[in-house]
Amino acid sequence: MPNAPSSSAHGLTGAQLFPHRHLTGISGLQPHEITFLLDEAEQWVDLNRKASKHDGRLSGLTQINAFFENSTRTLLSFEIAGKRLGADVVNMHAAQSSVKKGETLIDTAVTLNAMRADVIVIRHQSSGAVQLIADKVDCPVLNAGDGRHEHPTQALLDALTIRRRKGRIAGLRVAICGDVLHSRVARSNILALTSLAAEVRVIAPPTLMPPAIERMHVTPFTDFDTGIEGADVVMMLRLQSERMAGGFIPSPREYHALWGLTSERLERAAPDALVMHPGPMNRGVEIDSNIADDPNRSAITEQVEMGVAVRMACLDVLTRRKRGVEGWA
Amino acid sequence: MPNAPSSSAHGLTGAQLFPHRHLTGISGLQPHEITFLLDEAEQWVDLNRKASKHDGRLSGLTQINAFFENSTRTLLSFEIAGKRLGADVVNMHAAQSSVKKGETLIDTAVTLNAMRADVIVIRHQSSGAVQLIADKVDCPVLNAGDGRHEHPTQALLDALTIRRRKGRIAGLRVAICGDVLHSRVARSNILALTSLAAEVRVIAPPTLMPPAIERMHVTPFTDFDTGIEGADVVMMLRLQSERMAGGFIPSPREYHALWGLTSERLERAAPDALVMHPGPMNRGVEIDSNIADDPNRSAITEQVEMGVAVRMACLDVLTRRKRGVEGWA
Amino acid sequence: MPNAPSSSAHGLTGAQLFPHRHLTGISGLQPHEITFLLDEAEQWVDLNRKASKHDGRLSGLTQINAFFENSTRTLLSFEIAGKRLGADVVNMHAAQSSVKKGETLIDTAVTLNAMRADVIVIRHQSSGAVQLIADKVDCPVLNAGDGRHEHPTQALLDALTIRRRKGRIAGLRVAICGDVLHSRVARSNILALTSLAAEVRVIAPPTLMPPAIERMHVTPFTDFDTGIEGADVVMMLRLQSERMAGGFIPSPREYHALWGLTSERLERAAPDALVMHPGPMNRGVEIDSNIADDPNRSAITEQVEMGVAVRMACLDVLTRRKRGVEGWA
Repeated sequence: MPNAPSSSAHGLTGAQLFPHRHLTGISGLQPHEITFLLDEAEQWVDLNRKASKHDGRLSGLTQINAFFENSTRTLLSFEIAGKRLGADVVNMHAAQSSVKKGETLIDTAVTLNAMRADVIVIRHQSSGAVQLIADKVDCPVLNAGDGRHEHPTQALLDALTIRRRKGRIAGLRVAICGDVLHSRVARSNILALTSLAAEVRVIAPPTLMPPAIERMHVTPFTDFDTGIEGADVVMMLRLQSERMAGGFIPSPREYHALWGLTSERLERAAPDALVMHPGPMNRGVEIDSNIADDPNRSAITEQVEMGVAVRMACLDVLTRRKRGVEGWA
Repeated sequence: MPNAPSSSAHGLTGAQLFPHRHLTGISGLQPHEITFLLDEAEQWVDLNRKASKHDGRLSGLTQINAFFENSTRTLLSFEIAGKRLGADVVNMHAAQSSVKKGETLIDTAVTLNAMRADVIVIRHQSSGAVQLIADKVDCPVLNAGDGRHEHPTQALLDALTIRRRKGRIAGLRVAICGDVLHSRVARSNILALTSLAAEVRVIAPPTLMPPAIERMHVTPFTDFDTGIEGADVVMMLRLQSERMAGGFIPSPREYHALWGLTSERLERAAPDALVMHPGPMNRGVEIDSNIADDPNRSAITEQVEMGVAVRMACLDVLTRRKRGVEGWA
Repeated sequence: MPNAPSSSAHGLTGAQLFPHRHLTGISGLQPHEITFLLDEAEQWVDLNRKASKHDGRLSGLTQINAFFENSTRTLLSFEIAGKRLGADVVNMHAAQSSVKKGETLIDTAVTLNAMRADVIVIRHQSSGAVQLIADKVDCPVLNAGDGRHEHPTQALLDALTIRRRKGRIAGLRVAICGDVLHSRVARSNILALTSLAAEVRVIAPPTLMPPAIERMHVTPFTDFDTGIEGADVVMMLRLQSERMAGGFIPSPREYHALWGLTSERLERAAPDALVMHPGPMNRGVEIDSNIADDPNRSAITEQVEMGVAVRMACLDVLTRRKRGVEGWA
């Protein structure tokens, strides 16, 4: 079992533990704030494994999931998280949205706010869209992925998964492999893992490696076999099919040959290396099935489970001020 | 604060206050019945401004939102309203509906009824579709907009907004401007505001002015500058993009020049004139941003807020008979 | 009123009454197990006819409706059923699903499982897809229709409707008419009704009659007038528009002439013959409106009502083990 120190262990109380109104990204969070959210998530992992998994603390609060970009998994995860906490959860799907009628994003934000939302979860194809909305509303805003910017709950669920499987994060060598250039998952993970003192390596084809990535305190590799050497965690990124068509890579087959995770390649990592993937996977492209399905190596299913727990923690923590929780109001 | 007389102030009790089974339109409502719904909505405005906004009175009741025509805002508003009242709310989206399989509208109505819906909210592209369904089911039906016919909750939320901002409706000069011909919002508002003794003017391009509109007890103007003269409330209508393509107007730019609400034009209205818009707005077409965003003039955000409250009032009132509320059963 | 023997009448207790983890089909169910589910559904028919229709027994449980194939009615029915039982119900729509991103069906199943679903309802266009998912998850799986395979809750609701209207099922002559070849509704009904000792006839055009259908203990007829002779129940199938385009039938008009249910044809059935249709109907194609709308002959509306009750029964029974209900855990 991982160690889950009680909040008071930080020597802080209430809103000092997490003074932020919104969760727009990992950027701007202190290490102890990230750890606080991970600690909080542990109780939800426990609850979710019970037969009855209901907690009424968000009862009477309205959670709006405004997904301007489709994502079945992330929407399901946030919807389940909110409902288990007792919130009134409503989904706003992009395909039906007034945005199509020419409404500006800010008008949409103002509208959701006027309906007295208590927390808004946003996914948007444009970087910065979530911050734009956060600036216009009275309630907490949770970023469920915006453009190439951030996907903070993904980084939190990944960190929680690592901490539970490895017992710690500090000092681990984590290799993040794939389309780092376009990936908000990579970006949020780099921010979270370096903040928690992991040694982070990024492995990408030269066309998909962000320029000056060293500034993010990571070591870049364009050769997979070198980069994976001794890694404790191998985090594969999803290859977006748009990239395949976009000329960034020659073909799925060639991508697999050079950048896919195979058993052979994994042998260069640490003997007990953990394999992760944010899903949905392109089996046989960025990852081989025998690795993805190996319960001793793969933490992919556990990542999904941690996702619901982390989102419950974020929804709970961000609404404490409004709910008048002692030390937060 | 607006005056919200208690229901007993009308000298009526229970079902006498609102004897209608359905809310298919403003047409057919007595002035005191409209006022009754506005009075009822006040409590929900108050509740919605609280941190916890739950009321269990519709607990155990099934609300089906059957939207044959997409409308993100209106659907969200009804869904939030029902959930805050504790109903089991389910949405039926047109895009997935059996209607696409050739089922008749009446068969859909009979199906929803057989599932023992307790209240059905309907939006449909055809005028009269809501009445057709209301005639076939055992439960209350709420019109969320049907064709060019009516959109009664929009008129109620507009009336509530005006009453709260101006303290009264009777005697106010209200100018409704834009595509009056195709607008169910205009139609329901004309019916509600004239019923409540406002002086209503309609301003529209000749191609978008309904013939014989004087019969609705309004004064038509085809010149914006004349029509807006001394108005206490300026209610702009949304310019449907279908109209722009349909040859009714020459171009968005020309529409703005002749029919858009600018600061200059607004100066002809009363000094404290209230500006309204049902949303979503085409900024720079029918309304200028500096007006829309001026909190002293614009009530646009408040309209959205009143929308949830008014819908909660309608859902509550229409289900009282079924719930056996004293005086209603 | 139909006879609804208490469960103890079977001389069995708890999980012996229904030892199955999943409901993937009628195939594999014993007659007393089918009867048990019908008996259980009776209480939900009663509850659904009350003003307040809430039962909290699935409170704290997460029900995921994963519909890979659209079906407004069936989805609504399962969603209402789950919400009335107090479950946290979330819908996963095919159109938004990760399946579109190339994810395998098994990965989707594993994902829903990792989110700690307590019951999964699946509709899929491929026969066997539901079983594939059932094999991969820890929670009960309910088949809401898979390919040409089975649609067990449809058969259960049909059986319940017949039992309530006729007082029994054994010994009744039931004629199932239409596109038997492609119909999972027909298949599940044949299995259920023959299991319950009805005499089942299938009537279909030669191109839409499954080969060797006699092995399912039914009598095939390609002539409608002969097949319907003396039938106590006439169950019409929906003509899928895909079939019309597929060359299986010459035209809707000709189909109606040869295979549509008309008053004239119905006269050959028993004088009190019950008419059924799973909906949505193609009026004037497979069934005439005067028959569909005759309350004395048609049970079509009652079928919809029984659908919600049967689904509540299945959701309740399948989750008893997890909920630790006495005799089931």
